[in-house]
Amino acid sequence: MNNFIFQNPTKIIFGKDTIEKIGEELKKNNMKKILIHYGGGSIKKNGVYDRVISSLKENDIDFVEVSGVKPNPRLSKVLEGIAVAKKNDIDGILAIGGGSVIDSAKAIAGGFYYEDDIWNAFATKNRFKKALPLFVILTLSATGSEMNGNAVITNEKTKQKWTTSGLVLYPKVTIIDPTVQFSLPEKQTINGAVDTISHAMEYYFDGTENNEIQLQLAEGIIRTVINSTEILLKDPENYEARANLAWSATLALNGLLSTGTKGGDWASHELEHSLSALFDVAHGEGLAIIFPAWLKYNYNQHIERFDRFALKIFNIDTGNHAIDAKLGIEALIEWYKKIGQPTTLSEIGVTEKDIENLVKNATQKEYIGRLKRLTEEDVRSIYKLAL
Amino acid sequence: MNNFIFQNPTKIIFGKDTIEKIGEELKKNNMKKILIHYGGGSIKKNGVYDRVISSLKENDIDFVEVSGVKPNPRLSKVLEGIAVAKKNDIDGILAIGGGSVIDSAKAIAGGFYYEDDIWNAFATKNRFKKALPLFVILTLSATGSEMNGNAVITNEKTKQKWTTSGLVLYPKVTIIDPTVQFSLPEKQTINGAVDTISHAMEYYFDGTENNEIQLQLAEGIIRTVINSTEILLKDPENYEARANLAWSATLALNGLLSTGTKGGDWASHELEHSLSALFDVAHGEGLAIIFPAWLKYNYNQHIERFDRFALKIFNIDTGNHAIDAKLGIEALIEWYKKIGQPTTLSEIGVTEKDIENLVKNATQKEYIGRLKRLTEEDVRSIYKLAL
Repeated sequence: MNNFIFQNPTKIIFGKDTIEKIGEELKKNNMKKILIHYGGGSIKKNGVYDRVISSLKENDIDFVEVSGVKPNPRLSKVLEGIAVAKKNDIDGILAIGGGSVIDSAKAIAGGFYYEDDIWNAFATKNRFKKALPLFVILTLSATGSEMNGNAVITNEKTKQKWTTSGLVLYPKVTIIDPTVQFSLPEKQTINGAVDTISHAMEYYFDGTENNEIQLQLAEGIIRTVINSTEILLKDPENYEARANLAWSATLALNGLLSTGTKGGDWASHELEHSLSALFDVAHGEGLAIIFPAWLKYNYNQHIERFDRFALKIFNIDTGNHAIDAKLGIEALIEWYKKIGQPTTLSEIGVTEKDIENLVKNATQKEYIGRLKRLTEEDVRSIYKLAL
Repeated sequence: MNNFIFQNPTKIIFGKDTIEKIGEELKKNNMKKILIHYGGGSIKKNGVYDRVISSLKENDIDFVEVSGVKPNPRLSKVLEGIAVAKKNDIDGILAIGGGSVIDSAKAIAGGFYYEDDIWNAFATKNRFKKALPLFVILTLSATGSEMNGNAVITNEKTKQKWTTSGLVLYPKVTIIDPTVQFSLPEKQTINGAVDTISHAMEYYFDGTENNEIQLQLAEGIIRTVINSTEILLKDPENYEARANLAWSATLALNGLLSTGTKGGDWASHELEHSLSALFDVAHGEGLAIIFPAWLKYNYNQHIERFDRFALKIFNIDTGNHAIDAKLGIEALIEWYKKIGQPTTLSEIGVTEKDIENLVKNATQKEYIGRLKRLTEEDVRSIYKLAL
């Protein structure tokens, strides 16, 4: 097990009928005027918006709004948010949405105080040092952004989908009411499940040895996600499955699974980020395509761990490590197919002729991968395997 | 799954050679003069004391000391600590030790500002509202006190071993260096393992339904504890096993397993607290005696959960729920015996004639137990089963 620091100050309020608590929480944190940040308006259809506004009014909290955040959130929207925030002299930000909205809100929160070109907080080590207080009402469980300090933003001009992180970006308070996810399109639930499993796998397959407790926790989370997703595909309003999936998604990327590891591999995420930067694919779909290709390419790097994965997640045990490792990857792909995910680039219209663009985009980073530091040739091979 | 609030602000610094970071952490938190609180002096033998003092001196942090904390920490020592703290105008407290020292330090931290009789913070709902900042160097993994807001103190005069809790009692920073536990007496490692398993079981068996994710996490922690303990009995300086056991112990009572449950049963802990208040038994020994008796008495209250425990922890699956449930309890008792724990009251010299005193002490509480609210007769039966 590696040395680590764990610190996660976010207060989570989880469960039925919890959205109404937002006004009180904002008041406790001395918020008098806030920026509300959200997406395309589904929160107006499902009633979440009205519930929030009532709670704000009851607690005399003034607000301005910036909406229209899109999946793979854009830098231009972040800049718009920062301008509105500065003009209106707000005390904090309330993100109402999933990971895209939260990430966009984090970038606004940090950008509010950032004196340099904001993209440097993503492209260089000059990260955000200070941020406006951030509050979250989560409407889609997937990215874990509701309980961490990470934000992924796409710069439309440079076609870069890059990440920043920092302790100042952790939400102060996050409200997770699983019932608001009853009305999600099935596809979004599935994408969230794949994203969650992928987060757990990034830590699981980063080459750390002797981290039994983290492996046990990761396996528990992955099994719960598989189980809950299967229930939800038949019964989308099953509260217990929604709650188990939601809390699993938060725990998969709140720092818990990172403890004691090398910090995660993250090559699959990097390669997926290039895919969605260039083709605007949903992150959960991109991961269902890229991660299995990465697994196939790399299982020889840590065959005992891949063998263990097959056993603990899919009960595969032929007695042969290498065969089990491969069967485990196949079982994961089969499960992705079963829940309706694409598992190849061709299925989403990306073909051999696009590979070089993807490689070029992905290899801008200083390095990719930890289990294996990927060379340009490795990256090319993984994209090709994903065809 | 039940609604919950999760908030845990403690910063954990975990791993080899981390003790030296204490001075820097105290300085970052503006500590100029602190109270150092510790036990019987094992930290002077194993070098931890000297390493801490060097780090304090390097960072110009002044200190006073109150030592001599005993297992089942006493109120009298807490009062001594408060007096010294007030007289010396300290900024915070550094606890160096295991759960007893940390709990004692928490009571001093809260008692410093408490205007009422301090025992009321334990005996009534008038809990600590404010506390001195607390810092911890953990030398024995067991109670989880290093990352929660709980403190258990024994009032010697009234023979009450009671608990308080509050967000103000969470340590600001806790350093866990598993290597300092290499030199622990075997018995203390074993007691810590039993304490950790017991914490996980309190949540596991509290009657909550449909909390798959918490069950998976609890099972993962229990399996890791069993596995790590077995390694350590043969090889006490095995770093990986120490690290896995240490982090499991912290996670078992940092709020993670509580999320979504009814809050845990805690009857076994209450009954054990009476046992150690009256007979000064080590908590881990008391739990190895009391918890199995509670399990035997209550398995009929939630037979599917007991059945699941048998399967997931001990791979027991005869196909009959009730038989499996009972075999699971027997397997736990056998494992406790195997690692050298007493599993009956008689083994520690407590006999039938002591039962009524135990019952009287335990039933002072407003209520005991959540899976089953225990009547006085239930409590008596459980103690008798433990004979």
